[in-house]
Amino acid sequence: MQANPQLNKRGGLQHLLSIDGLPRDIVLHILDTASSFVGISEREVKKVPLLRGKSVFNLFFENSTRTRTTFEIAAKRLSADVINLNVDTSSTAKGESLLDTIDNLAAMNADMFVVRHAQSGAPHLIARHVQSHIHVVNAGDGRHAHPTQGLLDAYTIRHYKHDFSHLAVAIVGDVLHSRVARSLIGVLRTMGTPDIRVIAPQTLLPAGVEQLGVTVFNDIAQGLRDVDVIVMLRLQNERMRGPLLPSAQEFFKTYGLTDERLALARPDAIVMHPGPMNRGVEIDSPVADGGHAVILPQVTFGIAVRMAVMAILAGGV
Amino acid sequence: MQANPQLNKRGGLQHLLSIDGLPRDIVLHILDTASSFVGISEREVKKVPLLRGKSVFNLFFENSTRTRTTFEIAAKRLSADVINLNVDTSSTAKGESLLDTIDNLAAMNADMFVVRHAQSGAPHLIARHVQSHIHVVNAGDGRHAHPTQGLLDAYTIRHYKHDFSHLAVAIVGDVLHSRVARSLIGVLRTMGTPDIRVIAPQTLLPAGVEQLGVTVFNDIAQGLRDVDVIVMLRLQNERMRGPLLPSAQEFFKTYGLTDERLALARPDAIVMHPGPMNRGVEIDSPVADGGHAVILPQVTFGIAVRMAVMAILAGGV
Amino acid sequence: MQANPQLNKRGGLQHLLSIDGLPRDIVLHILDTASSFVGISEREVKKVPLLRGKSVFNLFFENSTRTRTTFEIAAKRLSADVINLNVDTSSTAKGESLLDTIDNLAAMNADMFVVRHAQSGAPHLIARHVQSHIHVVNAGDGRHAHPTQGLLDAYTIRHYKHDFSHLAVAIVGDVLHSRVARSLIGVLRTMGTPDIRVIAPQTLLPAGVEQLGVTVFNDIAQGLRDVDVIVMLRLQNERMRGPLLPSAQEFFKTYGLTDERLALARPDAIVMHPGPMNRGVEIDSPVADGGHAVILPQVTFGIAVRMAVMAILAGGV
Repeated sequence: MQANPQLNKRGGLQHLLSIDGLPRDIVLHILDTASSFVGISEREVKKVPLLRGKSVFNLFFENSTRTRTTFEIAAKRLSADVINLNVDTSSTAKGESLLDTIDNLAAMNADMFVVRHAQSGAPHLIARHVQSHIHVVNAGDGRHAHPTQGLLDAYTIRHYKHDFSHLAVAIVGDVLHSRVARSLIGVLRTMGTPDIRVIAPQTLLPAGVEQLGVTVFNDIAQGLRDVDVIVMLRLQNERMRGPLLPSAQEFFKTYGLTDERLALARPDAIVMHPGPMNRGVEIDSPVADGGHAVILPQVTFGIAVRMAVMAILAGGV
Repeated sequence: MQANPQLNKRGGLQHLLSIDGLPRDIVLHILDTASSFVGISEREVKKVPLLRGKSVFNLFFENSTRTRTTFEIAAKRLSADVINLNVDTSSTAKGESLLDTIDNLAAMNADMFVVRHAQSGAPHLIARHVQSHIHVVNAGDGRHAHPTQGLLDAYTIRHYKHDFSHLAVAIVGDVLHSRVARSLIGVLRTMGTPDIRVIAPQTLLPAGVEQLGVTVFNDIAQGLRDVDVIVMLRLQNERMRGPLLPSAQEFFKTYGLTDERLALARPDAIVMHPGPMNRGVEIDSPVADGGHAVILPQVTFGIAVRMAVMAILAGGV
Repeated sequence: MQANPQLNKRGGLQHLLSIDGLPRDIVLHILDTASSFVGISEREVKKVPLLRGKSVFNLFFENSTRTRTTFEIAAKRLSADVINLNVDTSSTAKGESLLDTIDNLAAMNADMFVVRHAQSGAPHLIARHVQSHIHVVNAGDGRHAHPTQGLLDAYTIRHYKHDFSHLAVAIVGDVLHSRVARSLIGVLRTMGTPDIRVIAPQTLLPAGVEQLGVTVFNDIAQGLRDVDVIVMLRLQNERMRGPLLPSAQEFFKTYGLTDERLALARPDAIVMHPGPMNRGVEIDSPVADGGHAVILPQVTFGIAVRMAVMAILAGGV
């Protein structure tokens, strides 16, 4: 059996590839470190020299300006040198293999690759390939994982609810195509969340989703009852017109989060969304802009969590 | 009535959105501050730490490499962290609204948005929306305003002519589609310029342009007589083939600035152009490269003016 | 006769445009300086302040993410402010001339232009045009020159072979379209390499190539015999389907570097390639990944060589 590729020999974090196999103490170390970085981002001078002189490559084989921006900011606030590479227009277009591209960039004395790829497993492939002084962060691979999103979700829940051991969390929408959902379920289980629910039409649920340790609801009114946390998933545009759903309007009617449905949850429930939101599709505007929504704090905490991951990997934290 | 959205409660600069409503003392403060930055850009180490640790987002909803570059350089010389976002390829393409995009970036602890948008008023909309610690700079919105261009034009005129109170300034060309012209006329009036002329065919003049406080000339020979400053406007390519003009050649014949026409102005007249120039369309090469042209100094002063605006907004200057 | 445009009045390096006309002592100064920078790139903090506050423009009129990245990293490790400009989408699209674009950027107090252009001679044109405090580095122009590639090849050969005075070097493949080959032949001659061979089908050799001081081989087995250094050239995709070659498979059969052919060279021969490699076209995977290949060290040395060139030009080294 191969050892956990995310951990080094001393059990520390070597790469961040997936929530799967990430020990609870490392998750806690990331969340605690992120906590100290939240303060830095509110200071006049939002910078610490932890990654000064390090070279971080944002290696995006799939375009995502939003995610790339969060990693770019996080790296710059750690004083790293950041190189953005959108690789569809680059060497791979010239027929070079993924690992040749990686070898090439590694030879430029890279310290970290932040990798986004449409194919599941690409960051693992890279992590297995590089030398031990190089660290890989998965910024989303196919339908597989988006671990920094899972960690920022966990950070947000801990911030508002303090403790996972008594929580009911509902994840609503397109679970089938969502790496956000997979990573979130993983981290919730690691943190010992007793009641994790997924709410979706059967067509948007992966086969055997119950084996992830969640309860399935097809009816949102039943699923939201007395939950502490509601996480709405983004419905991708291509899904709205696809064969799995009648229409976006129909989806909103059956699964959209309205104030009325929100009232079924606990009175102090929080509403989360990974962004970008489709208002009027998965979430109603009064909910998105209302007092239960913590969608923008998620973004703020996301910067801190990414700083924490990078600082732990390459900054000796 | 809403208060001036560009000023904070103490009357200082909160956003730079438009020359309209910008008090004379603030214009002077910007020009005086820019003056100190001209020296910095000539030093060996062209950097000051005024915006160290601040996050400046260049948010370009309309592509303009040239303008984006000037703001990027200005921010880097102030030691800011700069994030470039071309937003057509980003979240808005995913159906996210402008203000959701802004909220999202603001939640990343942004300090400043430099906004370019094809729609007039977009920077105002953003400025009204963001919290008071975030500053918005309009880098050109539709046909409306391009205030840093107006300010750098004012800086250039003051540099060469010292005082506005006796000047005659002629603005030549496509006034109708020019945010440059609007911003320049505004700042010239604020600075008390007594004689402001626009020279153009009737088809390239906005209706009621006289109400801006300018004198209209359709004949360039009359209009240039004894002026101190000539500002040539760029004729956009789409205009050269459009219904408003017979052809680029015809435009040059009737309105192009040649040495012969330049001789009608005062002997010490300066020639300005916002760039990029169409040689042989609005300006003849001997004029563009001649001793009266101050087109390249405009660019140099433009960096200093943008540094000044940013430093005043977010650097406590 | 015009003086050497690459040298200033004191005989120092003013621009790096081509290996042609680059004196041996300057090549040695670059290689020796690069040697000290190799160490910096292996340190924890991979930065020196030699170009702090300088503005370096990566001016790419032809897309090349790989080459742009190497210059961006080199400049950042010297602490310069780097501005990336892909100019096809910029002002030149608006009909502005190359030299107007340059004047404009120079007026922003540029210190260095790193220029990539599809047209041979474009960097020379720019170098002749700019003021003496601005430095131009040719990052590849048409089929003409790619001097930093030539210098990093020379660095690599010196690193492994110490001395050029007894070496046999074979350059294999598409010499006709290769600026890499031209620059390499130039630097090998400058360094006094006695035996320089080119190995290619007649269709991929420039007319009169012998006048560059090389021996021509159409048969690879003859050409590789007892060489110390093999440099494989990249076969561009468009060439594989063009009229000059039957097919990529055929090329590999006749000119591809296999272990069998490598055995014809000296036992301690090194194998180089400018990248990106076409495995199975010009080079077989066992060779590319084998013990003779120094293709990745070339990349590492390439960063150091570019740092050296920039530091000599603008950092007072």
